[in-house]
Amino acid sequence: MPKITFVIGGCRSGKSRHAQELAEATAPANRVYVATCVPYDDEMRDRVRKHQADRDRTWKTVEAPLDLPDTIRDTSRESGVLLVDCLTLWTTNLLLDPERSDRMPLWIDRLAEALEAAQCPVILVSNEVGGGIVPENALARQFRDWVGTLNQRIAACADRVIWTVAGIPVTIKGGGSG
Amino acid sequence: MPKITFVIGGCRSGKSRHAQELAEATAPANRVYVATCVPYDDEMRDRVRKHQADRDRTWKTVEAPLDLPDTIRDTSRESGVLLVDCLTLWTTNLLLDPERSDRMPLWIDRLAEALEAAQCPVILVSNEVGGGIVPENALARQFRDWVGTLNQRIAACADRVIWTVAGIPVTIKGGGSG
Amino acid sequence: MPKITFVIGGCRSGKSRHAQELAEATAPANRVYVATCVPYDDEMRDRVRKHQADRDRTWKTVEAPLDLPDTIRDTSRESGVLLVDCLTLWTTNLLLDPERSDRMPLWIDRLAEALEAAQCPVILVSNEVGGGIVPENALARQFRDWVGTLNQRIAACADRVIWTVAGIPVTIKGGGSG
Repeated sequence: MPKITFVIGGCRSGKSRHAQELAEATAPANRVYVATCVPYDDEMRDRVRKHQADRDRTWKTVEAPLDLPDTIRDTSRESGVLLVDCLTLWTTNLLLDPERSDRMPLWIDRLAEALEAAQCPVILVSNEVGGGIVPENALARQFRDWVGTLNQRIAACADRVIWTVAGIPVTIKGGGSG
Repeated sequence: MPKITFVIGGCRSGKSRHAQELAEATAPANRVYVATCVPYDDEMRDRVRKHQADRDRTWKTVEAPLDLPDTIRDTSRESGVLLVDCLTLWTTNLLLDPERSDRMPLWIDRLAEALEAAQCPVILVSNEVGGGIVPENALARQFRDWVGTLNQRIAACADRVIWTVAGIPVTIKGGGSG
Repeated sequence: MPKITFVIGGCRSGKSRHAQELAEATAPANRVYVATCVPYDDEMRDRVRKHQADRDRTWKTVEAPLDLPDTIRDTSRESGVLLVDCLTLWTTNLLLDPERSDRMPLWIDRLAEALEAAQCPVILVSNEVGGGIVPENALARQFRDWVGTLNQRIAACADRVIWTVAGIPVTIKGGGSG
């Protein structure tokens, strides 16, 4: 049973669904969904609702839009598995927060330390966002850089990395039933 | 010989060329190119012309900008292989059609059913469009979501899924000479 | 020891760092970094400085913003390994140069010929830029097409092709210690 699993893929590549299946195969109970999403428009609220409808009552939801490292440390003490979905939104939240946006390297370190210290298996989901052309918008470029830096760091920490495309999971680091 | 093959990759990743090679290895004759493209500007007309120049006279072309499922059912009865290029343009055509744009789930179901019923091997090409940052344009986001949903469904139906990058085919589902 | 290695990945996927590690494993000395980058703003100057700081004094830097094929031919005669970083910026430089922008096919041929003639191992880095939605900007579409065409050609020439995502190298052509 890998302790840290990282699932990365493009938008609508099936990464959340696959991560959920992995989590359900990891722990029969005490599953915690760590949501980084703070829905701020109808489009996002719809998406959150669809994801929730896919999870049954064996799941508990915890919101961690900003203080994800502490949430992982605390929650992992009494859980069977944590599913963190997703790191891309967490990055967005940090970059939009005036007190946190200029300390991304610190937050990345803290997340890596929290994963090291976690008391149960953790599955993290993130988006591959660097596969298109360079965005014209400077904030979008900065976002893309931080997400890429964070993804590399978490993939380096992870025991298992799974890349998804068109719903197909491809294990690119670690073995097991990816 | 896999019945349904799905080839997915980014723009200019060599997916159409690879799909054509697979089709030519699948059937010596009665090859049908199912074009979803309705070229509406010079740039697209050029692209279509270049693709046509790559196919010899062993190929017949059928246009199916909208009613792709019926075309697959009908054409597969008397063909050696169908090459459908591509699902991304088909999605665009449906989303731009006032009578069809709000029934995407129905069209995705119909395509999956037509593939199930097909009487000859079918090779389908699609674009990976979810690897960049979130588009600012709402229609582009909607397009990206539907293409991703369709790609997942077709990959789930397919006996073989091949991902292409820089012209290199990588078999990510099913075995064989990918 | 593969003669030509091609490393491709999205922005911030770890491709440059992996290419540098490969180069350092290939030759103990006489390592040449062939920079295609002509930094024209602070953001790029920063990025160049960060990359330079990662390379020690066993590296020599040669700039080749435009005449990359000749630089590879000449430099390879007296080097242990060349690291060309990156083909995407080279394409940008050619497309922005009034005397070269309409001869991309010629430049792609020349690069392929220079790699064929190279006297030492060459490692080339490029971006996957075709994974997002179609850009609205015509120049961006043209850029994306040329980068894709170039990437396919170089991958076809290469003895080894490595795709990177989240810092994880995945060998997709050729064997060895990818």
